[in-house]
Formats: sequence, C-alpha cells, structure tokens
Amino acid sequence: MDIEVVSASRVFDGTQRTYRHSSSALNCAMNFAVYAPDQASGAALFWLSGLTCTEENFITKAGAQRVAAELGLTIIAPDTSPRGELIPDDPEGAYDFGLGAGFYVNATEAPWVEHYHMRDYVETELYELLVAELGIDRSQIGISGHSMGGHGALTLALRSPDKFRSVSAFAPICSPTQCPWGHKALRGYLGKDTAAWRQYDACTLIEDGASTNAILVDQGTADGFLEDQLKPELLARACTAANIDLTLRMQPGFDHSYYFISTFIEDHLRWHAARL
Amino acid sequence: MDIEVVSASRVFDGTQRTYRHSSSALNCAMNFAVYAPDQASGAALFWLSGLTCTEENFITKAGAQRVAAELGLTIIAPDTSPRGELIPDDPEGAYDFGLGAGFYVNATEAPWVEHYHMRDYVETELYELLVAELGIDRSQIGISGHSMGGHGALTLALRSPDKFRSVSAFAPICSPTQCPWGHKALRGYLGKDTAAWRQYDACTLIEDGASTNAILVDQGTADGFLEDQLKPELLARACTAANIDLTLRMQPGFDHSYYFISTFIEDHLRWHAARL
Repeated sequence: MDIEVVSASRVFDGTQRTYRHSSSALNCAMNFAVYAPDQASGAALFWLSGLTCTEENFITKAGAQRVAAELGLTIIAPDTSPRGELIPDDPEGAYDFGLGAGFYVNATEAPWVEHYHMRDYVETELYELLVAELGIDRSQIGISGHSMGGHGALTLALRSPDKFRSVSAFAPICSPTQCPWGHKALRGYLGKDTAAWRQYDACTLIEDGASTNAILVDQGTADGFLEDQLKPELLARACTAANIDLTLRMQPGFDHSYYFISTFIEDHLRWHAARL
Repeated sequence: MDIEVVSASRVFDGTQRTYRHSSSALNCAMNFAVYAPDQASGAALFWLSGLTCTEENFITKAGAQRVAAELGLTIIAPDTSPRGELIPDDPEGAYDFGLGAGFYVNATEAPWVEHYHMRDYVETELYELLVAELGIDRSQIGISGHSMGGHGALTLALRSPDKFRSVSAFAPICSPTQCPWGHKALRGYLGKDTAAWRQYDACTLIEDGASTNAILVDQGTADGFLEDQLKPELLARACTAANIDLTLRMQPGFDHSYYFISTFIEDHLRWHAARL
C-alpha cells in the first residue's frame, strides 16, 4: 500500500503523524492521523469526528495523547468524507451534507455513490490497514467518536461487534432516522426507501437485533443540539429494551465543543483500554 | 469598563470565556480569553501567544485547563496584535509583522504608533483589568508564552519583576536584536536607533541590569526555528553572566508546535503555582 507521511510531531511519549494515501473505497486521496505511543500495547482506538471536521480536529484539540501514551493506545482518526476538487459537494455548500459530512454510510444515490463510502473506508479499508501496516491486534480495536462520529462509532460497533470490541461516544446523533441532520443525510445518500436507513441508525439496529458488550456515552446538558438532533433518550430506551449495558452520563453545563471532549476523553480512553 | 462575553464553555472544573472590550492602549476592539477555575486560588498566569496566533490558539490546543482547574490558576490569553479593518498591516501581508505579530512592544514609528502598543496593553491595561474585574491578587500574577510570546513573557517579567512574579517560556525568541524576525519587527515598530531596541530583548535587558527570580524555558531540539530565530544559548549566556537562575530544558525531538506545548504545559503551570 502506498502511504505517505505528511507530518510527524512528538507529543508526550509518542508521535503524532498525518498520513496520505490513495483510498480504494472512496476513490480519492485521503489524509488520516495516527498517534503512535512509544510503548504501544497493541490496542487501538478509531476516533470518528463530527460534521465539518477533518482528521485534524481531534488530534489538535482533544488532548488525548497524554493518556494514550500512558496506556499504550494507538489512536487512528480518519477524515469525515471523501475530499478533493473532483468530489461532489452539497450544491449549496451546506455544512451537514457532502464534504465534511459523510455520515459513515455507503451511499447508493447518484452522484454520491461514486465516492461517499465512509462505512467501507473505516470498517474495512482503514481497519485492514491498521492491522497490516501498524501491527494492531484484531482483537484489540475499539471505536469512539463525536456527534456525527458518535453515530458512526455506535453503528459500526453494533454492526460489527467482533471487529470493534469496545465502543463509546460523545454527544452522538443517537437516531438519524428521527432527526433533521439524519433525515437529510440518509435521504440524500441512500434515497427515499427508509428500510435502507435502518442499518445506519443505532436505535433501529438495536431494534433489529444488533448488540454490543457495553456502551459509554457522555452528553453535555448545555449542548444546543441535544433536543432536536442528538436525542440520547432514544438510545437509552432502545438499550433498555434490548438489555444492552449503556452508561449514559449527562454532564451538567457542558456544550457540544472540543472543550467537552477534552474534559472527558481520559475516562473514555481508560474505558476502552480496560476492555481491549 | 465595558466588557462583553463573546462565548463561554465548561472545561474541566471551570469555565473558558472569550471577552471583547474596547482597548484604550490599542485604540480598537480586542478579544481576550480567560479560563476561570471554579475553585480559584487568586493566582493568575498571562499566556502570550506566538506569530499568527489569536487569543484562541492556546485555549483550544494547549490542554492547559485540566491542571489549571486542579491548581485554581486563572489563565488570561490576549490576542497578539491590534485587530480590525482600520488597523495597518504589513503591506505584503507577511506573517511576521503587523497583524498577528505585535511583538509586545510600544511602536514609535508611523503608521504603527497609532495602534501597536501591545506592551502597554498587556503590562498595564489587561493587568489592571485582571486585578480590578477578576479579583486577581497583584502579588500572584505570573507570565508565560510561546515563541514571539516567549519573548514577550521574558521581557515583560524582566522589566517588571514586581508585577510578574514568575516567568517561563516555550521556545522563546531569546534575543530579537540578534535574529531576522526580531530585526524586522524592531526596525519596523521602533525605527533604526538600536538603542531603543534594548528594552525589548531579554538578553540586552539582562546585560543592562534587569533581573527576575528564576526562569523556566523548554525548547524542542527538532524546532525548525531553533538556530536562526530562537537562540536559547544567548539567553543561557546572559543569565549565567548575571547570576539569574535559568532552567533551560532541551526536549529531544520536539518541534515548534502546540504538540510540544501541550506536552510540557503541566510542568509550567505547576512551576508558576509553586511560586505565586
């Protein structure tokens, strides 16, 4: 595989690198970021970012490297959509569809079907790259993310519990089939048949029998997207009905920003390390 | 004083706010950032940022809030130059002069003299605001910074050791009178008479008798600006000659980025808290 190192910086006892490669799943060149602790345990965590983000937001703002170095946890952070001048974008340049808003689905509608396969990209292409190129043990890979990326983490883990052995999320979009962001994305990428949407919604996946060992979710109470878009109560209801062990922590006064993530990322990294 | 809160977010056990006010020293509207721990000790640290930065870089990338909350340390982070459409900028838009590059001096040359008074802004206007509006004890204020801001921290502390009781720096420009960034800035803001430059150079200030209790400096060995612009050996020589207690730590493999700052900010905050 042809992978180029774009940048490398020492951070705590490890190295933060950004790589560039030619993605076959997305049919374009992509950046992704990897934090490699000097004393790697063999375990790794996927971090999926939210709307408008690239591979850079998490690695510069979350402050995850300190605890990742201590735990020996490798962290891989992909971009949030295919990229480049040839990639179709929302015709009005909206922040919640197209570039920066891949929603971790495999699109089936034109023109998105040509490139927007973020599900395959994370679930298969980057996953195999992590195992083959970075020496990560298949039995020690977890997944987490924020907002749209929290939706991605939950749905990938529920669909493939053998691949992603631990899962957590920050302020996830808990049920894209039941919120405006999700309606727009799922209709756009997958078309009008809502049956096809159910594999991209943590709540409907659980209703349809998907499961996972345990889920940790942190959600700020001052998050402006809480009521209309995120709806953690729907995830709580689905987990209760299916007997899935959900730890949902409502964090008083915290908003939707990386300030919120940076405050609780240590808890999440330790949660994953204890399970991987 | 007329101060507006632009934004506020919970981070660890405290609140990160950005304020906007009308600066009399700079003759324009300015943003500055304050991290206020819930359990404030009464001590505060000024953080001065480097070239191209605003008040935002440190608060989103340094990961300082975790330890600041633990120590009860308030942190105030100003912007790096006057701002606004009416403020003169480098005619070629250079990153190292004009907007984002105030160099913590009081300019005397036209057209900079109208607005570029970052020395007065930090040393007097924001300092008094911190005491009057935020309840900080005058005897418990320290100062730190990065690169151009490290130069700012060192020179402000050396000129006013009674106002800034503790001082540290990350990869500071140690002697602006002896490097290209400094030559350009000092000639531009202060004119050709190099005698006027000596109050804005840590090394010449020390040669001229200025002193401070102790100085902590971290410098990455893989910093691309180390040899031509930063020159910590000049600060080491000046401190040795003047019997100033300098702790200069060369950090192997670290570069000039916020990854470097985030790795060692905890040490610096504890250094200041122990002295304030």
